[in-house]
Amino acid sequence: MNFKMLGKFLGTVLLIEAALLVFPLIVSLIYKEPIAPFLITIAILLALSLPTLLLKPKRQRIYAKEGFICTALSWILLSLFGALPFVISGSIPNYIDAFFETVSGFTTTGASIIPAGQIEAIPKGVLFWRSFTHWIGGMGILVFMLAIMPGSDGNVFLMRAEVPGPQKGKLVSKLRNSSLILYIIYLVLTVAETIALLLTRMPLYDSIINAFGTMGTGGFSVLNDSIAGYNNPAAEWIIAIFLLLAGVNYNLYFFILIGKFRDVKKNEELKTYLIITLVSTTLISLNIFYNLTEYTAASDAVRDAFFQVTSIMSTAGFSTASFDMWPSFSQTLIVVLMLLGACAGSTAGGFKISRCLIVLKSIKRDIRKIFKPNSVKTIRLDGNPLDEDTVKSSLSYLSIYFVIIVISVMVIALDGMDIVTTSTAVISCFNNIGPALGEAHASFDVFSYFSKLFLSFLMLFGRLEIMPMLVLFSPSTWRKN
Amino acid sequence: MNFKMLGKFLGTVLLIEAALLVFPLIVSLIYKEPIAPFLITIAILLALSLPTLLLKPKRQRIYAKEGFICTALSWILLSLFGALPFVISGSIPNYIDAFFETVSGFTTTGASIIPAGQIEAIPKGVLFWRSFTHWIGGMGILVFMLAIMPGSDGNVFLMRAEVPGPQKGKLVSKLRNSSLILYIIYLVLTVAETIALLLTRMPLYDSIINAFGTMGTGGFSVLNDSIAGYNNPAAEWIIAIFLLLAGVNYNLYFFILIGKFRDVKKNEELKTYLIITLVSTTLISLNIFYNLTEYTAASDAVRDAFFQVTSIMSTAGFSTASFDMWPSFSQTLIVVLMLLGACAGSTAGGFKISRCLIVLKSIKRDIRKIFKPNSVKTIRLDGNPLDEDTVKSSLSYLSIYFVIIVISVMVIALDGMDIVTTSTAVISCFNNIGPALGEAHASFDVFSYFSKLFLSFLMLFGRLEIMPMLVLFSPSTWRKN
Repeated sequence: MNFKMLGKFLGTVLLIEAALLVFPLIVSLIYKEPIAPFLITIAILLALSLPTLLLKPKRQRIYAKEGFICTALSWILLSLFGALPFVISGSIPNYIDAFFETVSGFTTTGASIIPAGQIEAIPKGVLFWRSFTHWIGGMGILVFMLAIMPGSDGNVFLMRAEVPGPQKGKLVSKLRNSSLILYIIYLVLTVAETIALLLTRMPLYDSIINAFGTMGTGGFSVLNDSIAGYNNPAAEWIIAIFLLLAGVNYNLYFFILIGKFRDVKKNEELKTYLIITLVSTTLISLNIFYNLTEYTAASDAVRDAFFQVTSIMSTAGFSTASFDMWPSFSQTLIVVLMLLGACAGSTAGGFKISRCLIVLKSIKRDIRKIFKPNSVKTIRLDGNPLDEDTVKSSLSYLSIYFVIIVISVMVIALDGMDIVTTSTAVISCFNNIGPALGEAHASFDVFSYFSKLFLSFLMLFGRLEIMPMLVLFSPSTWRKN
Repeated sequence: MNFKMLGKFLGTVLLIEAALLVFPLIVSLIYKEPIAPFLITIAILLALSLPTLLLKPKRQRIYAKEGFICTALSWILLSLFGALPFVISGSIPNYIDAFFETVSGFTTTGASIIPAGQIEAIPKGVLFWRSFTHWIGGMGILVFMLAIMPGSDGNVFLMRAEVPGPQKGKLVSKLRNSSLILYIIYLVLTVAETIALLLTRMPLYDSIINAFGTMGTGGFSVLNDSIAGYNNPAAEWIIAIFLLLAGVNYNLYFFILIGKFRDVKKNEELKTYLIITLVSTTLISLNIFYNLTEYTAASDAVRDAFFQVTSIMSTAGFSTASFDMWPSFSQTLIVVLMLLGACAGSTAGGFKISRCLIVLKSIKRDIRKIFKPNSVKTIRLDGNPLDEDTVKSSLSYLSIYFVIIVISVMVIALDGMDIVTTSTAVISCFNNIGPALGEAHASFDVFSYFSKLFLSFLMLFGRLEIMPMLVLFSPSTWRKN
């Protein structure tokens, strides 16, 4: 392990966090709220990070294993320090609670320990920071770092560790330019949503916060009742559409920009994503419209269904209706969508549709093998042959994914909650969605501190797609060879 | 497809079923009950099967694909005709209900559609048949056929399709002798349990039935309250111990018989099985003893915990306590054990511990690969290297397993039951366990006929480990090349 390089790297990450904290500080100034929470945190970050810049590592290049460790540690440190404003401001007095909330923000989970009905009492600057973490975490802080830092072209392993999906590549030959393109698209979509929301007469502050929550697929809102609190059907449609957009692989937006429409058209993941959205919306609309008396107009049922489907698939977790009160068919479908997630290379969490496609195609090939034992068939995605390593790694990703869920459910079950609460809390955190069913539907405050800490790390496992965290916690990483 | 061979094969299977129906017929005679249900069924089976014996297929040997189809169709036909005595006797008037009950019997699931409290009203001969199906299905009807029929040595694919587990081999060079050895061990253990239960003053009839339910890992009993109805702690211990034995790979018993103790000692699956049993029993004992007031003596808690753990892991599904009333930690642990199952090559269902070991070892190898990208490491089980095909097929088995559970939960959710009822019913049927949590805890009668039919096929998918049923339902099987 190149400790000097690691130190310098983490120092840079903390320095960027200090810079990002200037935004909520400005918001606090505008609303005439105390700025001490942010000033103190920035001071601590500067004190820790500036000395590391003096480190002179012999080697700058980051290899696979180091890439995983840098990524995992960056995310943990960002959350450890990002929690300070919540504690210092007194908004979330307990540090473990604040850590949970910050991890939930950065990982774009959106699960909150703030008790139901107490969100609106928190200062606007602090709530801005809470939602801003979504936006930072959505596209990834390391991708951001790569975008703004010169000479980072060798560090492709960082991007691999942070960008989700079974296949990872650069958009253009230079890594730095790839990162920059991703961030520009991300910014443009966020601004577009903010403007669209402003047009529905949503206040500017709320529009920005909800755009952060949407495009980062996080789901923190500033009202106690989430998006339902606005009573604004137009805004609900806009958010739902941007949630759908947020779940799409960003590479496709780049292809559209450079006119490569054929690449978009042949993308199987996108097709599947849209079909699943359509079918699920239809099924849930019918199910709630015919079973719940509160829906007198079909259009309300369709809007609520579409909103909830895009919100869960994109793993944002906003809500406009109490889906914990929906008929069990809709609830079950939502839990299945929770497991699935959206497209690779988007800001969404979950298992990812492309992985699911690869697994299904591999199953199909296994069945075919019984008929023609000697046939050697290559699995194709988007018409291109997939190499066997990608297929194998998708299958083994599913195994680890399944094993982690089972173990986590056992651990959280120690809190003594019912099975639905326990398992949906685990699925929700691991897939970076946010809301759970049962007792934790309104707030994760019901769990013990041990469980909150465990769930925090589970969110990090989910956001970084397991491997970086596993490497960090593996004894062989820290053993001297 | 060699249709003549298939016809002759299925005819033989039905002929054997006719012979097996003589046993419940004798029981009916002893208890002076109507024998018409069995006589009529036997007559129908003979009428259908005898003509097929005249078929002269050109080729006797069965290949992989045909082996799967023969196996799948045999099990479906056995259940279709095995359901007749229930209908004719009026014990289960509806044919779909009777089909469910018979599939549940043969697949050793033990889920029942007989409404709670109405089991004891059914004639003893019919109940004998119901439990006898467990015993027949436990070791497998085709293994039985191979054991009794001469000249079946070429048909190793049949055994592969019916015997569960990731690796399948013959015990001795002759397949027929292997099957015979398995059935003799099975018979000896069943007789031993019957005698042991008789010693606890359980009536002979009940002792035999419960031995069928135990060794077949089925779980049908003759009392409304399952084993709890006997109020007989000694019998509970005996059944629990035989349940533990039933979950062991039968090859190991053969190794013990021929003195190969080293092979038993180095068996990782057995070791893991025993450790999981011990740990789960300890955890559940503590959990129920400290949380439920009904346990005044620790020994009662240990007995109930040990019984439930062995009953669920062996996938029998007997019960001595209402575990749907247990604290949620114990309930969650039980659901996890449901997914796991016991050892390959036993009569138990579930995912199987050896598959789980292979998957975990494969995950471990994937992590190691990050540290040493160029290392090529072979996965070992019991000290022997596993070929990559077995590793890959275990990973892909897990994928199919997971996909089938998710799809089935969605289908059963159409009935509108709560998530816990729906998902535990699916897990319970697919893993051939029997009891579910929630509304279906007492009886599966709560489901619609469509769901009962779906769950019946799900049990067959589980018992035959997916592939034979997938091949049967695959369009390419029936397409002409």
